[in-house]
Amino acid sequence: MKIYETTGFPNPARVRIALAEKGLTDQVTFEEVDVMGGAHRRPEFTAKNPTGTVPLLELADGTFIGECSAITEYLDHLDNDPVLTGRNAKERAEIAMMQRRVEAGLMDAVGNYFHHATPGLGPDLEVNQVPAWGEREKDKAQKTMRYLDSVLAEQPFVAGDRFTVADITAIAGLGFADFAKVEIPADLAALHAWRIRVTERPSVAA
Amino acid sequence: MKIYETTGFPNPARVRIALAEKGLTDQVTFEEVDVMGGAHRRPEFTAKNPTGTVPLLELADGTFIGECSAITEYLDHLDNDPVLTGRNAKERAEIAMMQRRVEAGLMDAVGNYFHHATPGLGPDLEVNQVPAWGEREKDKAQKTMRYLDSVLAEQPFVAGDRFTVADITAIAGLGFADFAKVEIPADLAALHAWRIRVTERPSVAA
Repeated sequence: MKIYETTGFPNPARVRIALAEKGLTDQVTFEEVDVMGGAHRRPEFTAKNPTGTVPLLELADGTFIGECSAITEYLDHLDNDPVLTGRNAKERAEIAMMQRRVEAGLMDAVGNYFHHATPGLGPDLEVNQVPAWGEREKDKAQKTMRYLDSVLAEQPFVAGDRFTVADITAIAGLGFADFAKVEIPADLAALHAWRIRVTERPSVAA
Repeated sequence: MKIYETTGFPNPARVRIALAEKGLTDQVTFEEVDVMGGAHRRPEFTAKNPTGTVPLLELADGTFIGECSAITEYLDHLDNDPVLTGRNAKERAEIAMMQRRVEAGLMDAVGNYFHHATPGLGPDLEVNQVPAWGEREKDKAQKTMRYLDSVLAEQPFVAGDRFTVADITAIAGLGFADFAKVEIPADLAALHAWRIRVTERPSVAA
């Protein structure tokens, strides 16, 4: 397997954590994509991934899989023990629900704030910004943080009793929030405690 | 199982199609949520679903599952033959990739246009609209239609050779586009042909 990624970016970090959780990191070769230089928008890359995003997984048979959630589905099912995405109907549903809420409400919301209401990746890459939308998305991200705090006050992980892909998306989302200067309210005690615990996992600390 | 939904709305339509495809419709009771009257934002409903969206699935044990993708995961795994979401790692990855692209690029994009750049559900429900963002999302929806056309020129369904959850999201997304008056460009021949074929399926025609 080969993964196209950009070091230090929040979405590639999600797949790095999934790889480590599944013990698959040493089965992958990595290729750096110069997003700051616009490489993700050039035809060589968009022929592989029409949405122009990293990370991107290339399988041995030449199939390209984009989107973090899809790459994680693949990695998690390779050993027929999908601990990250759920092993039965109810687990899968609860994890998918939280994954969607965290992805849309935190990760994508922070991304929209960063790309629309801040200089983002710079004037060459950030065209047609809508700052009012970015500010709304910042509010949404902080509302999602408060929701996650209420969830984590009742259970140890985002989707229940175990670490799952929803925790991966949430920890990467908080990292992105730090980078984009979206404050994580100090009173969210359960969220902060969860973050400390999750950050101690070898897959995340790496 | 019980499903809270709003008749005629695009996301509930997705779950109705999934139920029919899996032969589960008669195992569900349905409860109407008066979204136009704001019932989805009242505490009785948000206690069940904090994001205030329909559809919402209630399991026999009292668990609530929100988000269409999560409800479909549940329904699809009940018989241990997940034909809608994929039966092995590669199928699951390809379907999840297309599901994410169609959901973010078409369904959610049309929704953002509808709620931000049109009167949407009316002045009582549509607060803090950002029209410029809505227009951008309309462009994104039409770009996604063009992308889907290119995909469907090469294969019979959105995620490959079979009808999957990605087709469900796409057909509901096009229905929402019609309702919101987001034009489907006439030159997208493969997309229009696929729509005719999919609309003939009993699960969709119902």
